[in-house]
Amino acid sequence: MSSTWKNNLSLSIFGQSHGVAIGMTLDGVPAGEAIDLQALQAFLDRRAPGKSPWSTPRKESDTPEFLSGLLNGKTCGAPIAAIIRNENTRSQDYDNVRNIPRPGHADFTAHVKYRGYQDVSGGGHFSGRLTAALCIAGGICLQILARRGIMIEAKIVAMGDVDAAKQDGDSVGGVIECTVNGLPVGLGEPMFDGMENKIAGLIFGIPAVRGIEFGTGFAAAAMCGSQHNDLFILGDDGAIKTQTNHHGGILGGITSGMPLTFRVAIKPTPSIAKAQQSVNVMTNEPTTLVVKGRHDPCIVPRAVPCVEAAAAVAVLDAMLMQNAAP
Amino acid sequence: MSSTWKNNLSLSIFGQSHGVAIGMTLDGVPAGEAIDLQALQAFLDRRAPGKSPWSTPRKESDTPEFLSGLLNGKTCGAPIAAIIRNENTRSQDYDNVRNIPRPGHADFTAHVKYRGYQDVSGGGHFSGRLTAALCIAGGICLQILARRGIMIEAKIVAMGDVDAAKQDGDSVGGVIECTVNGLPVGLGEPMFDGMENKIAGLIFGIPAVRGIEFGTGFAAAAMCGSQHNDLFILGDDGAIKTQTNHHGGILGGITSGMPLTFRVAIKPTPSIAKAQQSVNVMTNEPTTLVVKGRHDPCIVPRAVPCVEAAAAVAVLDAMLMQNAAP
Amino acid sequence: MSSTWKNNLSLSIFGQSHGVAIGMTLDGVPAGEAIDLQALQAFLDRRAPGKSPWSTPRKESDTPEFLSGLLNGKTCGAPIAAIIRNENTRSQDYDNVRNIPRPGHADFTAHVKYRGYQDVSGGGHFSGRLTAALCIAGGICLQILARRGIMIEAKIVAMGDVDAAKQDGDSVGGVIECTVNGLPVGLGEPMFDGMENKIAGLIFGIPAVRGIEFGTGFAAAAMCGSQHNDLFILGDDGAIKTQTNHHGGILGGITSGMPLTFRVAIKPTPSIAKAQQSVNVMTNEPTTLVVKGRHDPCIVPRAVPCVEAAAAVAVLDAMLMQNAAP
Amino acid sequence: MSSTWKNNLSLSIFGQSHGVAIGMTLDGVPAGEAIDLQALQAFLDRRAPGKSPWSTPRKESDTPEFLSGLLNGKTCGAPIAAIIRNENTRSQDYDNVRNIPRPGHADFTAHVKYRGYQDVSGGGHFSGRLTAALCIAGGICLQILARRGIMIEAKIVAMGDVDAAKQDGDSVGGVIECTVNGLPVGLGEPMFDGMENKIAGLIFGIPAVRGIEFGTGFAAAAMCGSQHNDLFILGDDGAIKTQTNHHGGILGGITSGMPLTFRVAIKPTPSIAKAQQSVNVMTNEPTTLVVKGRHDPCIVPRAVPCVEAAAAVAVLDAMLMQNAAP
Repeated sequence: MSSTWKNNLSLSIFGQSHGVAIGMTLDGVPAGEAIDLQALQAFLDRRAPGKSPWSTPRKESDTPEFLSGLLNGKTCGAPIAAIIRNENTRSQDYDNVRNIPRPGHADFTAHVKYRGYQDVSGGGHFSGRLTAALCIAGGICLQILARRGIMIEAKIVAMGDVDAAKQDGDSVGGVIECTVNGLPVGLGEPMFDGMENKIAGLIFGIPAVRGIEFGTGFAAAAMCGSQHNDLFILGDDGAIKTQTNHHGGILGGITSGMPLTFRVAIKPTPSIAKAQQSVNVMTNEPTTLVVKGRHDPCIVPRAVPCVEAAAAVAVLDAMLMQNAAP
Repeated sequence: MSSTWKNNLSLSIFGQSHGVAIGMTLDGVPAGEAIDLQALQAFLDRRAPGKSPWSTPRKESDTPEFLSGLLNGKTCGAPIAAIIRNENTRSQDYDNVRNIPRPGHADFTAHVKYRGYQDVSGGGHFSGRLTAALCIAGGICLQILARRGIMIEAKIVAMGDVDAAKQDGDSVGGVIECTVNGLPVGLGEPMFDGMENKIAGLIFGIPAVRGIEFGTGFAAAAMCGSQHNDLFILGDDGAIKTQTNHHGGILGGITSGMPLTFRVAIKPTPSIAKAQQSVNVMTNEPTTLVVKGRHDPCIVPRAVPCVEAAAAVAVLDAMLMQNAAP
Repeated sequence: MSSTWKNNLSLSIFGQSHGVAIGMTLDGVPAGEAIDLQALQAFLDRRAPGKSPWSTPRKESDTPEFLSGLLNGKTCGAPIAAIIRNENTRSQDYDNVRNIPRPGHADFTAHVKYRGYQDVSGGGHFSGRLTAALCIAGGICLQILARRGIMIEAKIVAMGDVDAAKQDGDSVGGVIECTVNGLPVGLGEPMFDGMENKIAGLIFGIPAVRGIEFGTGFAAAAMCGSQHNDLFILGDDGAIKTQTNHHGGILGGITSGMPLTFRVAIKPTPSIAKAQQSVNVMTNEPTTLVVKGRHDPCIVPRAVPCVEAAAAVAVLDAMLMQNAAP
Repeated sequence: MSSTWKNNLSLSIFGQSHGVAIGMTLDGVPAGEAIDLQALQAFLDRRAPGKSPWSTPRKESDTPEFLSGLLNGKTCGAPIAAIIRNENTRSQDYDNVRNIPRPGHADFTAHVKYRGYQDVSGGGHFSGRLTAALCIAGGICLQILARRGIMIEAKIVAMGDVDAAKQDGDSVGGVIECTVNGLPVGLGEPMFDGMENKIAGLIFGIPAVRGIEFGTGFAAAAMCGSQHNDLFILGDDGAIKTQTNHHGGILGGITSGMPLTFRVAIKPTPSIAKAQQSVNVMTNEPTTLVVKGRHDPCIVPRAVPCVEAAAAVAVLDAMLMQNAAP
């Protein structure tokens, strides 16, 4: 359990921030799908570090090596595996935090769960770096979906004042909104395999996500039914649509054909330059911690492609479920 | 796929609102656990209709009949199955909406997905009535957890003005907050089997849920890292705790030992007395719809035990995952 | 885990031999499939006790009550749930074996696993009676498959001398062969979701099964490659076939279009009238056990429809996996 | 679906015979387990080609590179990923069979399933070479089990006359028997997650397996109950044992504490030097095929560690299921 997600698609993610490599296996992708590796790299570059003044100075080319699943530029039906070797590792940066859990990180919970055997460097398997692997999988799915007219786009709808935070040795968070256009009616299953469950199950695989809401979301809680209900109308093309889209394209877990929309809350980067209070897990003594390493004062921009990636895996997975009698 | 959830525990929910019965199978519960059926009934009664002036006048005793899994008042290790027969069914109430999807309901998406073969009466399998089955499962898990000092309590933290909505033939939504106390450190897995993924995966099984946030949630997006980070301190008992609990008891998908907190957005009941615009799916003609049936102007109070139930299934499931080498 | 099988179809089986009822939930069946309940009953009757001089004198009508998932004789897309109430229970027959495990039964392993809390009457959840629930699920799948020209038929190919065994207070086993005709080429997935894995995973859910072999099976181990290899030829219809069918219709886990064949070994019924040696699990004292209850000297004939049922669930599940890009 | 197995442990296998690399991810292994890489290599060497006069002359060092999951020689709780680069690839050997399916191979079924996009070289993802990845996973599990006194050993119990077959350009098969000693009582779940289902589900992931039987297996079908039933006795250590072990250490899907035994039928290697009849899938014309490539006249010896590996994954997985209330 844990970093393996098995549905119609299966996704397995592995690696630690300062280990040999990170990577992923994506199994169940239909054969014969052309994958444009240059376009995939451009997608990965949106997530890669060192692209903005706000992101970590750690340099990683983030170029995946494909080990299997592609043949002459197309998927061959076998599991697709790809790895990215870690280049710019500096695990010694973490020597002073080996026994001192960083606030806001998984260091403490991982220490207890894995009884001290976990890889602490850069957060190990809990590092945001692992989202590069998610983006490989998602980037592949995005191309397959785009070919069928399904477009996924995320954008930042709220973000703290990054430059001020950077000067203060602090960090900020933000909110990302994602829209999926071009979906057919009828994807998703009721109850535990609805589109919300599926998307949320992958989105919470991105570190720093604290919440997800679909359509009007939390604001719906303050609306009246007569406001929130989306009336059914006939579209210009003769298809049934809704007049408004408070439901965010999902009714009863199933796509309605309207744009599927959701928003994701990203917490401020927990690694900050300011000294913080912690406790040494070996000696049980309170101590002051100064996190060295190289970190982003705001990871929200880099999280945008990750949200698109998670959504793409979820949507393609839902499309592979065949509901009509074969 | 759909209404079957398989992890360490497996939960299968079946039934339609106006069918013969609804029910559930809960598989994987450890043997030897005493189940207090009177306490379970009291828990189910919190969800049952007809208990407040706001809830539907449909009367259902909601008394489960246990078919298997219990022996002399204790779990015997075999799957626990229980059913509730539908008594007060009035499927003729839905004759006029058979082909006219109700705004805000799954009628339209179900019609397309199941090609007209779905059970439309009262929303069929998509009805909120199915949460009674979730509450049987959750109520059993709550008792098992309570015996180990783990207490789950949800409450309403925001709700619209129900009485006004009722008079207007309208409805309101609200926000429910849930807290899990007494958790050990170390439950949950990284990435796709974290506590957030697990809880969200079950919570979105409750109809009308539009969002979920953990700890400080969406508000965290507007905070600085230095505010949001929870500093580690030594508790009076010598255990490591955090000074604040913005992280809501989960770091890296794994419980920290602090109270696990999350909030759930409930949309206003889509069934309202007001006339609404819709389209007849057979004739493709616009039409005005008046929903008869018997409905709650606010289902938020009845959703509170459902949230506790979903959380209980998720937490017990996480506890059954054995991480230490056996 | 355990009695819940989740793939494209999900099957959950519950109940104990002498409990209130046994039953099943089958989730994921396409909507709009007519289910002939009379034909289903005829299928269940092939498994029901009391139909031959060799089967247990326990009388059970084995008539399922459908609780959900069917509407006007057709599947409606919601989970199909059905139960069979236990009528002719005589749990007092098992009082003398409560602490004395019957040789060849799961009594001893269940006692240790469930720490004495298990339901011992008639083997509880381990009873062959639970296969009635499997047959409900399989019977539904068989009808759906038959409509698409896929026919599943099992028969006995070896069996001990029942009448002699009965007189001796003994029992016999046998071998059942199952053939699936009419399959398209391309069902099944490589490695862990091949047709063999899928079928074996369900077949071993039938108590008393001790082995399974596909095509030529164990005899293939003694053949040469040039004998065992099935040469490809053009059929009269212009389709590619094989000249022989040693591979039993599966190559690389995937159907070849040739008849899918497998054989299942059924052990002799462990409940025999003869006195047997055992040990009291409470006192740890050796003791002699005489099994009362009512038992079949040979369950092989009743296992035939169970084998067909398991095969049908596996085949329909494989058909629901959509491999071509949607 | 397909090459991803998700239970308490998750195993994902990827690669094609003549692709860049093969590999595996094993997720869910407890942290803190020392892995002796030299011993692991020795285990892999038992499967590696070129070690006997009967095996393929293809040379592969089969030395895995570990990418994640190990730290200072111990598991760190994160997914373990390892790859083996393909060195001695000669995909041109397969040019003449690109459109001509080899009898006994998955070429034809893969061609139909993947619509011609599959990797045909050396069988692609269906190649026996992929079992090297299974052996990495299994080798790790074997070490963890051995530390707890659980020993798994497989051996050949039947095999054709290899040297004669080699001279004839033919091949032979055989039977492998596997024994697991040192198991506690109570592993495994009833019905669909029994030890038989779990082991069979992995064993059929090994190409060339045609059957599996537990304990006395198919021979049990010809026995009387009084012969086949294993009487319970008190062992010298005061523990309850059985006098004989026809049940092969499993009763009701659950381990009895007796040695777990099973036998696996391995078909003769389908790649033989003799000319064989086939059909060109592009032209639909019958043709004679001569398989070049480099092949084993008997893969039974190399399958022995694969059987141990599959058994080890199944057994460790069963041990990670926590049944007692936590």
